[in-house]
Amino acid sequence: MPELRQDPVTESWVVIATERAKRPESFASKKTKEDKDNTICPFCCGNEALTPPEVFALRPAETKPGTKGWKVRIVPNKYPAFTKKCSLETSPKQMFICTAARGFHEVIISSPDHKKSLAELPTDQVELVVDAYVKRYQQIKKDKSVKYILIIVNHGKSAGASLAHPHSQLFAVPVMPSRIEEELVKTKNYLKTKGSCVFCCMTKAETSERSRLVGESNYFVSFMPYASRLPFETWIVPKEHRPSFETLAKEEQKDFAQILREVLARLHKSLNNPPYNLFIHTSPSNQTTAEENFSKSYHWHVEIIPKLTTPAGFEMGTGIMINVAKPEDAAKLLRETEISG
Amino acid sequence: MPELRQDPVTESWVVIATERAKRPESFASKKTKEDKDNTICPFCCGNEALTPPEVFALRPAETKPGTKGWKVRIVPNKYPAFTKKCSLETSPKQMFICTAARGFHEVIISSPDHKKSLAELPTDQVELVVDAYVKRYQQIKKDKSVKYILIIVNHGKSAGASLAHPHSQLFAVPVMPSRIEEELVKTKNYLKTKGSCVFCCMTKAETSERSRLVGESNYFVSFMPYASRLPFETWIVPKEHRPSFETLAKEEQKDFAQILREVLARLHKSLNNPPYNLFIHTSPSNQTTAEENFSKSYHWHVEIIPKLTTPAGFEMGTGIMINVAKPEDAAKLLRETEISG
Repeated sequence: MPELRQDPVTESWVVIATERAKRPESFASKKTKEDKDNTICPFCCGNEALTPPEVFALRPAETKPGTKGWKVRIVPNKYPAFTKKCSLETSPKQMFICTAARGFHEVIISSPDHKKSLAELPTDQVELVVDAYVKRYQQIKKDKSVKYILIIVNHGKSAGASLAHPHSQLFAVPVMPSRIEEELVKTKNYLKTKGSCVFCCMTKAETSERSRLVGESNYFVSFMPYASRLPFETWIVPKEHRPSFETLAKEEQKDFAQILREVLARLHKSLNNPPYNLFIHTSPSNQTTAEENFSKSYHWHVEIIPKLTTPAGFEMGTGIMINVAKPEDAAKLLRETEISG
Repeated sequence: MPELRQDPVTESWVVIATERAKRPESFASKKTKEDKDNTICPFCCGNEALTPPEVFALRPAETKPGTKGWKVRIVPNKYPAFTKKCSLETSPKQMFICTAARGFHEVIISSPDHKKSLAELPTDQVELVVDAYVKRYQQIKKDKSVKYILIIVNHGKSAGASLAHPHSQLFAVPVMPSRIEEELVKTKNYLKTKGSCVFCCMTKAETSERSRLVGESNYFVSFMPYASRLPFETWIVPKEHRPSFETLAKEEQKDFAQILREVLARLHKSLNNPPYNLFIHTSPSNQTTAEENFSKSYHWHVEIIPKLTTPAGFEMGTGIMINVAKPEDAAKLLRETEISG
């Protein structure tokens, strides 16, 4: 029997309609032939000259930018959606409003290894990736024209990854994204009416209910939200109230890298390396004092959305998602999957 | 150079970033082997017993429900996302809100022809489909528990169509969809601040600017919106202010069927039968008088969204779409495509 669940954060509705699908295990990706792409990978070690000049790297002090030896490397996207080199000025024509897509669009190369994704890298390498996220975030935040910084991973071709070498992307944009605005406003409203942070409440409720839990570490909890929009949607949320990702202390960073790797490894193992999208939702950058007070009610977190089904006309037309997997069943599968260290 | 355009209706931002793609023509679908599916099609003439009992049909008076002879046939979806047979009662557990997915989920079979989509059917058959949309809409609207009725087409497997025989779907849902709520609120705000309907303004501006026009008929205009979210996104909008789809007069219905078929035929021809999602956005059903006055400011229309690219982590995380085709270039291609009568 289909049921309608309401997302506590955005108040959006989701239909959980499992009759339309199959058992949770059946979402596993089918083995496909590996891409026999003979082009040289610009993200591999030794090919540093094939990318735009690096803007950040974790590398031994004795090595030079643009040479081998790096552990994590950040370069501008070759076809940026946002760039500082924008010349277009705002030109309102009648009712049509347009502005330059000014900002940053960068690629964070996970490691010199062409094959190993975050799920397969050793935890200490994932720690370096998280360290690069935080450090580059802090650098870009200094640019006063940046309104929001989003870090994402598109894993797998059908999830939008155009290059196979594992990487993340950082976007810095000059407008407030509608999805963030919505979460900020709703979080604030929840605080006003219920007296507490909706993410704190959710995290406590999920930790005590346990049926949708995926994992838990010292500082974080991972679960599939009650109103999961898509099969195997998984979140990682700080247990304590924390508005901003980039203020992670060193010890929290290590702990975060560990749970991130663990959750991705569980997805990788149980669904046979599924394509997925991952993003970090955090407070906006460069705010006025009033805005800053406003966004203190926000609670940063990671959302991981495997790409296993196709949202179509109904979802686009209404904003109501139809999810064909119960999060309780999907979470159980992930919890019971054995992964290595 | 990428540019940020703002959608006049929802005020969402869209990045137009054509450097990331190719020429508009290159979006055409590649010929793939036809599905050699040997299962019997439940939507074909003669197989009426394979569907749940029909709830509506356009058929000669001498033929009986569930038999051959129909021109358009409507049956309940076999795996409904919404159904009247829901037993689940609202059961708020802590912060988790849930309600029965009570409503209707039906399939509108376009014609007895297994192969011909709306783009390929004769105009008088498309008129019958539109007639079935309107009549069934009016019937379902009488159910007082229905908050919103959405008619959609998912065309092609990768756009979510699970059966090849061309069909549309009707969803009647018991909650107000967030996407509709947003458009209603923004349309009302626009009216309040600017003194006119945003869709009327848009339609006039597009008709005079012409660069994004696709087609025009007596009562309708078709264009690609200025802030198109995806390549070849195309709208069909009544020229005059009309809140509701189901109040279409007979003459307007004929005119609508004609422009709908024309636009779909242009997409079919120029992009080699691309997969697409189509939905009708109209005012909500069953409103209080206050709500009804509120939604009089709405302006019904059709949105057609070909599935040519993959929205990924950035789009999901921000709500900002990255569109790799300029609507001006895409509209030009569609206008210049020759189609048969």
